[in-house]
Amino acid sequence: MFGGNKTMDDIPLEKLHELVKKRTNMQVIPGDQCASQSQSVPRTESGTRKVYVMRHGERIDFTFGSWVPYCFDEAGNYVRKDLNMPTSLPTRKPSLWQKDSPLTNVGRYQARLVGEGLKDAGVQIARAYCSPSFRCIQTATSVLEGLGLKATVPICIEPGLFEWLAWYQDGLPEWLTPDELLAADYNIDAAYKPLSSPGLLREHFHEKLNEFYCRNSNAAEEIIKSTEGNVLIVGHATTLDTCTRFIIGEKLRSTNDMARIMQKVSYCSLAVMESDGTTPSGDSEQAESTVKGHWKLAVPPCDPVTHTNNNRFDYKILLE
Amino acid sequence: MFGGNKTMDDIPLEKLHELVKKRTNMQVIPGDQCASQSQSVPRTESGTRKVYVMRHGERIDFTFGSWVPYCFDEAGNYVRKDLNMPTSLPTRKPSLWQKDSPLTNVGRYQARLVGEGLKDAGVQIARAYCSPSFRCIQTATSVLEGLGLKATVPICIEPGLFEWLAWYQDGLPEWLTPDELLAADYNIDAAYKPLSSPGLLREHFHEKLNEFYCRNSNAAEEIIKSTEGNVLIVGHATTLDTCTRFIIGEKLRSTNDMARIMQKVSYCSLAVMESDGTTPSGDSEQAESTVKGHWKLAVPPCDPVTHTNNNRFDYKILLE
Repeated sequence: MFGGNKTMDDIPLEKLHELVKKRTNMQVIPGDQCASQSQSVPRTESGTRKVYVMRHGERIDFTFGSWVPYCFDEAGNYVRKDLNMPTSLPTRKPSLWQKDSPLTNVGRYQARLVGEGLKDAGVQIARAYCSPSFRCIQTATSVLEGLGLKATVPICIEPGLFEWLAWYQDGLPEWLTPDELLAADYNIDAAYKPLSSPGLLREHFHEKLNEFYCRNSNAAEEIIKSTEGNVLIVGHATTLDTCTRFIIGEKLRSTNDMARIMQKVSYCSLAVMESDGTTPSGDSEQAESTVKGHWKLAVPPCDPVTHTNNNRFDYKILLE
Repeated sequence: MFGGNKTMDDIPLEKLHELVKKRTNMQVIPGDQCASQSQSVPRTESGTRKVYVMRHGERIDFTFGSWVPYCFDEAGNYVRKDLNMPTSLPTRKPSLWQKDSPLTNVGRYQARLVGEGLKDAGVQIARAYCSPSFRCIQTATSVLEGLGLKATVPICIEPGLFEWLAWYQDGLPEWLTPDELLAADYNIDAAYKPLSSPGLLREHFHEKLNEFYCRNSNAAEEIIKSTEGNVLIVGHATTLDTCTRFIIGEKLRSTNDMARIMQKVSYCSLAVMESDGTTPSGDSEQAESTVKGHWKLAVPPCDPVTHTNNNRFDYKILLE
C-alpha cells in the first residue's frame, strides 16, 4: 500500500484523486429532472405549432477576454491563439469584432448538438429568425446544420431581436450586413424585410426595460402572425424570457428578476412555446393581439447541453 | 437613459451585463504565451523524431457525477440524459462503466480539435499507443480522425500506460477487450503484444509512486525503442509527466508535486518530446537505456483547447 512510502505520502490518497476531478458547480442530474425533462424514449413532437427560442453558443470574448489585440496582426489578418477559436473569420475591420463577438468552436458545436437533438426528437422547422449579432447567426446556422436544414431554411435577420440597448450606452455594434453574410457563405434570407432597422435601434439606445421586453415580444408576435409551421428564434440570454413572457400571458419582470433569470440561461439554452390550438376570434381589433394568451411554455423536446470548463494548458509546468 | 426608470433600477447598469458573463477563472491570453506558444504563422514540424503525449478529453462521470443509475434502465439499456452525452455506447454490463467512464461529446470534440490542430501544423503520426481506459481509446480515435489517420493508424492498447494503481484500492476497472473494441468499430491493433497485462497490473495494486513513474516511463521507453517515426501516446492527467519525466532526464516528483502538476493538466493537454537527433552508443549495456537523455520537451505544434463551462439549463426558471 502507498502508506509504506511515507516520505511521499504528504497528501491523503483518497484526496489525491479528487484533486484531478475539476468538477464544476454542476449538479448531479436530479431525479425529478430526469422524470420531467428526460424520458426513456425519444420525445416526439405533437402536432401543435411551436416556437423554439434559443440563446447563442459560447462566445470568444467571454471565454478569452480581450482577444482582438492578440488575434489580429497589424495588417488586420486574423490568427487564432487557441484550438477553440475558429481557423478563419469573415473579413471586416478587426475593431468591429469588439462589440460583436464570434462563437468559439465549442459554441458552434453546442448549437450543432441542439440541432441534432431536435432532429432526433422529430422536430420540423419551417422558418428561422435571428438577432443581427454574428454569434446568433452562427448559432442559427449550426442548429439548422444539425437539423439537416441549413440549405433549405434561410435565416431572417431581425434587429428587433437584439438584446437590451441599455447595455450599449457607448454605441451599438455595427453588424455584418446580409450581403456580407451571404458572401461569407451564411444562408441569409436577403428578401426578408425586418420589423426594426439598425438605424431605428440606434435612435432608441435609451431603451427602458419595459420597452426592451415590448420590442422583443413584438418581434416574436409579428413572426408568429406572419408565418405558419414551427419557428426557430435565436437570440441572447434574455431572449428566452423577453420573447415569451408577454405571449404566454405573464407580466413584466423587474431588472433584478431579469438579471436572476438571465444568469441561469446557459449557452444554447432552449425554451419552447406551444400554441394551445385555439384560433383567434374574427374580430379585427382582437386579431391585433391574437397571439397573446394562445401560447404556453412546453417541455423542450431535447435535453440541454451541459459541460465543464477546460483551463488553458501551458506545457512548461512540466519543467517546473 | 435607464436611470430615468428608477423603480426598476435596483442593479447598477454596468454590473448587469457583467452578470451574464459567466467567465471562468481562465486568464486572458498573456502576451508571453502568445509569443512562445502561439505564432503568427502555422508552426510546421522539424525533421527530428517526436512523441506526442496527451491526456484524454472530458469524462462523463466528472461532468455529471453519478450518471450510471440515471442513464441505464432496468434492462441495462443506455439512454442519454443530456445532449453532451453520446447517443449510444458499446454494450457491456452497465456497472462496468462506473470505473471506466466514456467521454462526453465535448470530450470527443476536444480531441478532434487537437487532431485537426496537429494536421494543420503538418504533424505526421506513424504509431498510436493508448491506456486501456475507454476514454483514452475514444480520445486517440478522435485525434486520429482529426489527423485523417483513423483508418490507417490502428491503436495499440498498452496497459502499462494506465494511471496510478494506488487510486484503485478497491479493485481495478475491467476494460473493454481489443475484440470488444473492434466489434464497436474502434480501429485497434489486435496483433499488438502489450508490455503489461491487465492481470499483471491487478497483482501490483500496492504500486508506490516511484513504481508508477517507472511503469509509465518504461512503457514510453519501450514504445520509442520499438518504433520509428512520430508516436502518439494517449493517457491520463499524470501521463504527460510520468511518460516524459525520466526520459528527458528529470528526477522523480513527490506526491504533492505530482498532484500540483496534474491539476494543471486540462483535458486533451499535449506534451511533446523531441529527440535531440543523437544516436545511442554501440555499447549494448548503454543500449538498454538509450532513450534517456536523448530527448527534451518541445513547444507543442498547436495551441491548447480552452473553454468555459455550461451549466445544466432548466426551462422552468422562466415560469418563476
